[in-house]
Amino acid sequence: MNYHTQMEAARKGIITKELAAVAKEENLVPEELRQLVAKGEVAIPCNVNHVALKPKGIGKALKTKINVNLGTSKDLVSLDSEVAKVKAAEEMGADAIMDLSTYGDTQSFRKRLSQECGAVLGTVPIYDALVYYNKALKDITAKEWLAVAEMHGQDGIDFLTIHAGLNRANAEKFKARRGRLTNVVSRGGSLMFAWMEMTGEENPFYEYFDELLEICRRYDITLSLGDALRPGSLHDATDGMQIEELITLGDLTKRAWEKDVQVIIEGPGHMPMDQIEANMKIQESLCHGAPFYVLGPLVTDVAPGYDHITAAIGGALAAWKGASFLCYVTPAEHLRLPDVDDVKEGIVASKIAAHAADLAKGLQGARSWDDAMSKARQEVNWEQMFALALDPVKARSYHESAPPEVENTCSMCGNMCAMKNMNDILNGKEVWIGGENR
Amino acid sequence: MNYHTQMEAARKGIITKELAAVAKEENLVPEELRQLVAKGEVAIPCNVNHVALKPKGIGKALKTKINVNLGTSKDLVSLDSEVAKVKAAEEMGADAIMDLSTYGDTQSFRKRLSQECGAVLGTVPIYDALVYYNKALKDITAKEWLAVAEMHGQDGIDFLTIHAGLNRANAEKFKARRGRLTNVVSRGGSLMFAWMEMTGEENPFYEYFDELLEICRRYDITLSLGDALRPGSLHDATDGMQIEELITLGDLTKRAWEKDVQVIIEGPGHMPMDQIEANMKIQESLCHGAPFYVLGPLVTDVAPGYDHITAAIGGALAAWKGASFLCYVTPAEHLRLPDVDDVKEGIVASKIAAHAADLAKGLQGARSWDDAMSKARQEVNWEQMFALALDPVKARSYHESAPPEVENTCSMCGNMCAMKNMNDILNGKEVWIGGENR
Repeated sequence: MNYHTQMEAARKGIITKELAAVAKEENLVPEELRQLVAKGEVAIPCNVNHVALKPKGIGKALKTKINVNLGTSKDLVSLDSEVAKVKAAEEMGADAIMDLSTYGDTQSFRKRLSQECGAVLGTVPIYDALVYYNKALKDITAKEWLAVAEMHGQDGIDFLTIHAGLNRANAEKFKARRGRLTNVVSRGGSLMFAWMEMTGEENPFYEYFDELLEICRRYDITLSLGDALRPGSLHDATDGMQIEELITLGDLTKRAWEKDVQVIIEGPGHMPMDQIEANMKIQESLCHGAPFYVLGPLVTDVAPGYDHITAAIGGALAAWKGASFLCYVTPAEHLRLPDVDDVKEGIVASKIAAHAADLAKGLQGARSWDDAMSKARQEVNWEQMFALALDPVKARSYHESAPPEVENTCSMCGNMCAMKNMNDILNGKEVWIGGENR
Repeated sequence: MNYHTQMEAARKGIITKELAAVAKEENLVPEELRQLVAKGEVAIPCNVNHVALKPKGIGKALKTKINVNLGTSKDLVSLDSEVAKVKAAEEMGADAIMDLSTYGDTQSFRKRLSQECGAVLGTVPIYDALVYYNKALKDITAKEWLAVAEMHGQDGIDFLTIHAGLNRANAEKFKARRGRLTNVVSRGGSLMFAWMEMTGEENPFYEYFDELLEICRRYDITLSLGDALRPGSLHDATDGMQIEELITLGDLTKRAWEKDVQVIIEGPGHMPMDQIEANMKIQESLCHGAPFYVLGPLVTDVAPGYDHITAAIGGALAAWKGASFLCYVTPAEHLRLPDVDDVKEGIVASKIAAHAADLAKGLQGARSWDDAMSKARQEVNWEQMFALALDPVKARSYHESAPPEVENTCSMCGNMCAMKNMNDILNGKEVWIGGENR
């Protein structure tokens, strides 16, 4: 091959087979998509070693994509349950899966994913370094941090979350300000902050960013520049530290693009609705149009057990106003590791947000799905409604759990069904209703 | 008393005890609230016969309120299960309850509600007319329709949904246009449309609107002017018929206010996110600042089983941009009559939307709840987090279902808990993590 990364190929005018596949899925002319990839406005995370990959594009000109987090933790180490979650996630249409395992034989799981899983794969090397080296955080060396990133590249991971924006300068500013309610809520960010504090060294992903770019170039890893300083509460949203880090990420984006390394930018977090649009604009400007990957945003802090809903509200708004990629949030957020049902709930909520955003931004073709569903409703065609439902299984089981007495209605309205009655009256039939009580 | 309605009292400069109670709950100066009620920008639905009422104010200067629909249908007639839903709704903080019963001994249930239930009560007389007269729709007379409204007033109902905007003129326009995918999806609206078609008569609520106002004045019933022509699909959103009806409702609002009758306006429905803000502005203008009561809006048609989420997205946006009152939507929407679990899910989703909107519009005091929760999170104070949660029972049961190995964390992150580790490192303690694998 005469290119290392999708970005390099695009810049050389080459339509790769991955780009062609994405263009087809998105109903775009390949040449248009090539220009977006060349500019960095679309990323096609696509590790050369991810043999099972079905490539996806991430960028605001495309369908909004969703990511599913899963992985083992010390409290829940079963690989089988994680594999069940991967299968559920793929079946339910997750575009990407991040393996955030923090315990057990993580490399076997990762390799299995890249051999078998078609979704775009992401990881956070910081977590895995603690597993892999099996020694205390403060004893891990700068070179070892980078070596884990390389290992993940070899294992076929398409994008790596790299917390390079929380460098010493930003950490010092953070300590000087101390105005936050919830400090650093990013897991990787807090570990890197603690490592810097304990060792006195610079963030290795920042200090050796050029070496990191060489690794990324080697495997065509997309950098997902992590927002270690994302707000973890409404109180901390859009504060100085969040924006300082975003400026740093914008600088790093340019350096990555100079080496043809693809970039996406991670974003909030907890944020009231009225700040979301401004945050999307600021990110676009500071990060030069690189796709924005948001976790939420959660529009209130008070709903643990329902953060798939708080995140769906924020995610829909964010994706409408510029985000390209939504990290799902499950009902278990803030409470426990999600189980497979939580994963499903999180995926559906996130897909609702993504599709609602695609509708709002007027994405070509997005509305035909809704129109088909509404036509099925008008025709009171239940089988068609189930077939078109985002979750056909739940839709059918709900409907069939309370069978209506009047055929082709539901137990909500029975013979008062507006669809049925309007069809009758508009077709010149009388509407026979009433006189049936007691 | 030297006034008939809260609006008349406000216009006469009287601070009623109901207005004083609402002012206290909303942290408003009573005189300010009085002016808003006098202008019609706040409604305090408050039937003189609703003895158990704890009054609430509805208007965009106040906290966003939520309504819970329930009631029997021919397929599910149990009064006990409806009473269980009323109790659940009150416990979970529903501001209003609409009894939409369409079968059985509806009057006993209604009277029981006004004797025992503190929430604001609403009904749709059209449904109940079919139950009460127990005869065919087309045989109900104009006088009988109005008599049911009067009966509901006597029974203590605070607001009545009256589909007066779908008059013959609008029905004729609707038939001439026929451009909709889902015609008329309002249950009451479709019945009134069918009645007009079958009898050839004018909509009695429109024809005898002055008589209706006399009834409302007698009991201080608030008119909830129904949107019979609300869009039931994204395709039909913000179409000519929806706006024609809204203009008619604006005219009726002025007539009601001339008789000191309080008004709220019902609104969509199914609507893509990008149309919501404009719809709120149009309603405010066409209906002269009368509070807007929206059902949803549902921001996509494709998610039956999850319409509490599609409605939470739309409701949050609507309430932020001007709606005052959200009708909840449950996961059972479009599929069956909701059960008590559906009711709970619907209430929580709706309360999330309402609170997210109050935060976004900067309502005084709204953020203190979130800040208290975030402080509890930073302190890893689980009991406090449960106490502050919108649904403490679910939050606790989730957390306790997967107990963490490391004290004061959760199974999501275990000893990688960012809160715990940041507290340690910022207090000069080393973060001991790593070296625990395998």
